[in-house]
Amino acid sequence: MPLTSDIRGVVPIAPTPFHPDGRIDETSLDRMVDYFEGVGVDGLTILGQLGEAGKLDHAEGTAVARRVIGRTRLPVIVGVTAPGFAAMRSLARDVMEMGAAGVMIAPPNTLRTDDQVAAYFRNAAEAIGPDVPFVLQDYPLTFSVAMTPALIRRIVTENPSCVMLKHEDWPGLEKITTLRGYERDGSMRRIAILVGNGGLFLDFEAERGVDGANTGYAFPEMLVDVVRLTREGRRDEAHDLFDAHLPYLRYEQQQGPLGLAVRKYVFKRRGIFASDAQRKPSQNLTPQATEEVEYLLARLARTDPRARLPG
Amino acid sequence: MPLTSDIRGVVPIAPTPFHPDGRIDETSLDRMVDYFEGVGVDGLTILGQLGEAGKLDHAEGTAVARRVIGRTRLPVIVGVTAPGFAAMRSLARDVMEMGAAGVMIAPPNTLRTDDQVAAYFRNAAEAIGPDVPFVLQDYPLTFSVAMTPALIRRIVTENPSCVMLKHEDWPGLEKITTLRGYERDGSMRRIAILVGNGGLFLDFEAERGVDGANTGYAFPEMLVDVVRLTREGRRDEAHDLFDAHLPYLRYEQQQGPLGLAVRKYVFKRRGIFASDAQRKPSQNLTPQATEEVEYLLARLARTDPRARLPG
Amino acid sequence: MPLTSDIRGVVPIAPTPFHPDGRIDETSLDRMVDYFEGVGVDGLTILGQLGEAGKLDHAEGTAVARRVIGRTRLPVIVGVTAPGFAAMRSLARDVMEMGAAGVMIAPPNTLRTDDQVAAYFRNAAEAIGPDVPFVLQDYPLTFSVAMTPALIRRIVTENPSCVMLKHEDWPGLEKITTLRGYERDGSMRRIAILVGNGGLFLDFEAERGVDGANTGYAFPEMLVDVVRLTREGRRDEAHDLFDAHLPYLRYEQQQGPLGLAVRKYVFKRRGIFASDAQRKPSQNLTPQATEEVEYLLARLARTDPRARLPG
Amino acid sequence: MPLTSDIRGVVPIAPTPFHPDGRIDETSLDRMVDYFEGVGVDGLTILGQLGEAGKLDHAEGTAVARRVIGRTRLPVIVGVTAPGFAAMRSLARDVMEMGAAGVMIAPPNTLRTDDQVAAYFRNAAEAIGPDVPFVLQDYPLTFSVAMTPALIRRIVTENPSCVMLKHEDWPGLEKITTLRGYERDGSMRRIAILVGNGGLFLDFEAERGVDGANTGYAFPEMLVDVVRLTREGRRDEAHDLFDAHLPYLRYEQQQGPLGLAVRKYVFKRRGIFASDAQRKPSQNLTPQATEEVEYLLARLARTDPRARLPG
Repeated sequence: MPLTSDIRGVVPIAPTPFHPDGRIDETSLDRMVDYFEGVGVDGLTILGQLGEAGKLDHAEGTAVARRVIGRTRLPVIVGVTAPGFAAMRSLARDVMEMGAAGVMIAPPNTLRTDDQVAAYFRNAAEAIGPDVPFVLQDYPLTFSVAMTPALIRRIVTENPSCVMLKHEDWPGLEKITTLRGYERDGSMRRIAILVGNGGLFLDFEAERGVDGANTGYAFPEMLVDVVRLTREGRRDEAHDLFDAHLPYLRYEQQQGPLGLAVRKYVFKRRGIFASDAQRKPSQNLTPQATEEVEYLLARLARTDPRARLPG
Repeated sequence: MPLTSDIRGVVPIAPTPFHPDGRIDETSLDRMVDYFEGVGVDGLTILGQLGEAGKLDHAEGTAVARRVIGRTRLPVIVGVTAPGFAAMRSLARDVMEMGAAGVMIAPPNTLRTDDQVAAYFRNAAEAIGPDVPFVLQDYPLTFSVAMTPALIRRIVTENPSCVMLKHEDWPGLEKITTLRGYERDGSMRRIAILVGNGGLFLDFEAERGVDGANTGYAFPEMLVDVVRLTREGRRDEAHDLFDAHLPYLRYEQQQGPLGLAVRKYVFKRRGIFASDAQRKPSQNLTPQATEEVEYLLARLARTDPRARLPG
Repeated sequence: MPLTSDIRGVVPIAPTPFHPDGRIDETSLDRMVDYFEGVGVDGLTILGQLGEAGKLDHAEGTAVARRVIGRTRLPVIVGVTAPGFAAMRSLARDVMEMGAAGVMIAPPNTLRTDDQVAAYFRNAAEAIGPDVPFVLQDYPLTFSVAMTPALIRRIVTENPSCVMLKHEDWPGLEKITTLRGYERDGSMRRIAILVGNGGLFLDFEAERGVDGANTGYAFPEMLVDVVRLTREGRRDEAHDLFDAHLPYLRYEQQQGPLGLAVRKYVFKRRGIFASDAQRKPSQNLTPQATEEVEYLLARLARTDPRARLPG
Repeated sequence: MPLTSDIRGVVPIAPTPFHPDGRIDETSLDRMVDYFEGVGVDGLTILGQLGEAGKLDHAEGTAVARRVIGRTRLPVIVGVTAPGFAAMRSLARDVMEMGAAGVMIAPPNTLRTDDQVAAYFRNAAEAIGPDVPFVLQDYPLTFSVAMTPALIRRIVTENPSCVMLKHEDWPGLEKITTLRGYERDGSMRRIAILVGNGGLFLDFEAERGVDGANTGYAFPEMLVDVVRLTREGRRDEAHDLFDAHLPYLRYEQQQGPLGLAVRKYVFKRRGIFASDAQRKPSQNLTPQATEEVEYLLARLARTDPRARLPG
């Protein structure tokens, strides 16, 4: 079943596990999928930036997609961002045939004007085909492409196959409110809005009306709980849990290979990954950074026992 | 008399002459103004990038403006691009009181979305005051801000005091045609369009309907002639003259301090400037570059005797 | 007494108070200076980005500097970042004559190569004069200029008047460790390193060996305490206090005019500023954002009574 | 035989011919290869930006490479620039097995510091394998990555498989002189330097010591002649020919899809391509632009009969 604008909840951005020698670790991949299912997420996104997609060739990428899609009944979204529409189309068609629910597309950082951005997504939507639902990724910090709410509305309106926004603008709270306002005033059809950016503002984003989270935080359980507690109107409880995680979350959310190194380290510590190896170019945690992470986890574990990891 | 959208012809961007020790050379400044008047230009732009405006402090900048405005009856446009609206307002008010015809404003390179660019010019127009006519500078290559024709129309429409476009987009021919089309279809009021970019496409830009040139080419006589010949429908003659200049023009139009060094060198060779000194940070011509410029001038002089310079 | 590399502790980045009609509010300015002195900071930085320096003209900027310098015996650092070296020199000389302790310089976002960045600071140091101590601002997120530790070492080595680094790279912990390592291995003379970036990583930055904080957090008391507790080896207490502030701190640290709006709002709530007005272009807090800030302050006040503000 | 630093002469950047319906036009592809051979070029570069590489998927790209390599005995260089090293490696290995002479790599526009650029090329060279000769593309205008001569020397020194520089910096003449100086003073091994940038400065670049041209100008005969005439010391003849082409060359060298549209149009007019179709996203020549090109060709044909095209 293809992705629709009804998707909500938590859709983790999955890292890709490697053996220390660089081969894809399929056992860990399976374990991660099972783990995500077990904690009650609502879907999975693979082959995003966090998944080191650029370090997999086409065959490897499609192999990962096939394995994940084959193992779970959750909807799987596949990152198909590519330098050209031909490669994007090719990957999108391949993974949709395997049973992916939809694809995610980020804009190239060379786009400047509103017209250029809108044209890009029209061309992308045409390239992958109108039957392939796609997620619009709005992440100016990483992609250097700024989209106003009005531009997002335009993209959504021009492309019926755009069903979800991965919102990770920063600051971004008013943007969410504006977009939800467009829906209420009838100027934009409803789309799903799930937030990224490591979840750094999930506590308030959830209150502003987003449908969930689509990010790579190493404790997706917290994302699930915060989204649920907010939906249930239990504001203080949501913030209490979120705030307990925030010192570590902030540390994890450092941009680039360091943030990935932290996440993989914690996945290893949690027994999900056998190794925290990255493919090259990679960045490893220094001993001091490792100590800092352990310190943060120990402090978190005082409040959230799920962070209590065996020595 | 303030600048209006009726301005047309050639408005050179003036460099600022310095003594070798860095002091402003007022004698050369006067000589340049007289020289420009003598070759039949229609105005002057001072304190632009080419005028090394950033290397003058406020007192020096206003002194240059006062001297130029006091010496010529041509309309003088003053560059007031500044990092903040307070400094922009301050300089704009000062030079308008001295008798400047208008000011020129370039967008800061941090602007991205159409809305940001439009807001910037609304704020700038408000800061300098609605009585101060301004020139909108559209130079993506240098300023990294891309403006579509529709965005320019929006800026023109939102700001009655915007009377002229300094067009230096590249490629830019279709942009001119589109803007002139907006005027014809009544969706934009008429503004003056003068071209910059060293004049690299003046031959065709003039045919596309611009009103003239607003650039720092070291032989403004050529710009004057090409604009006139095109207006008179003498296409082949216009191109013959332009093409003769093109090898040197292209050399001069190299971006940054090198292009300025070439122009100052030629101004010195033509007897307009006593020295080709730049203020620091500066770039001088190497002996090989000097030889190349001399070679190009000698070749040009075969066709255009105005390039025949005394050894 | 001029700034030296011995500066340490907390040096707040001061906002500039305005009346609702846009005039500078000198009473609030005085009150802020007194307040900073009262909480035990070690210096003040004025006319930075947070101080809306671009919205003050030269006369206003120097008037603010004169008033602040005249009122406090703390060392005052003045932001002199400017589009050209002439304006930078002019402002630097003016404020040093008034008794400023030093100046702060950020690189223009057009710089790319290591050589360009190094040349820029050589030229800047020469422009302001070798007797004027300066703070090197390393803030890639805002200025788009990336400096490796080796490049910072080069700038420090080439410019004896560079006495302090305002470190706000992100991620930045390993950078601090590398720079301190350069000092230990003798390849770089010791400089002061104070951190910015809203203090988002101050807890660990303090442990990594920085000398303090140079940022605009609205509760500088917390910065003072965390720096002190860390220096005293009371790690858990430092983190307990920091973590209590983090949910609000993260909210305040949103980039651009929003972050400034939050800080000014809290300064008003704390009775330091009479108004939270910004000069245009400005951004005000929406009612929902105001509610979010109040909610965060109320939660913070449960742990830190200094955040308990009168209704 | 693999590419070495002995390559010199003219190596055109080849466009890719399409049928109007978007299919690759293999007949035109063959005709182009034969045409290039016939005019005496020294190699071919395919799947570069000009070749619309991003609009071909992996299978199409390798099919084009196979066909071109199979048809010519000239060395064929293949663009393998990719968002990740896995795809780069995969394409590089594939085309080298087919008999390509080497590959061309451009840096991603996210790189900033010298260290980042150097690390990128070390990683790229390792990814494709030390046995694959590569061309370093230095094109700041398009790729936004600035490399000083010292950085290029570092890349050349760190990567024995880097055998050629595609030089298209602008301004760039002094850079060539500096690099050749490095070779003479023994601080850099000799590499081939071929120039791009549409050939806009080939006349002087050839005099500065480059080995030839590696660009997509629609009359490669001119490039061949200018390189040869300069090598033979016939300076005035070289410039006479170059200057005759310059008005059209400048028009063709407009950045982006417009420049490609002009080249394809002229290839069609010359009978090399059956169609000037681009794959989407594309830009077609307007009637006015077509008239301008025809006018320029007619003027050029007065001097160079090779530009005399059948009506």
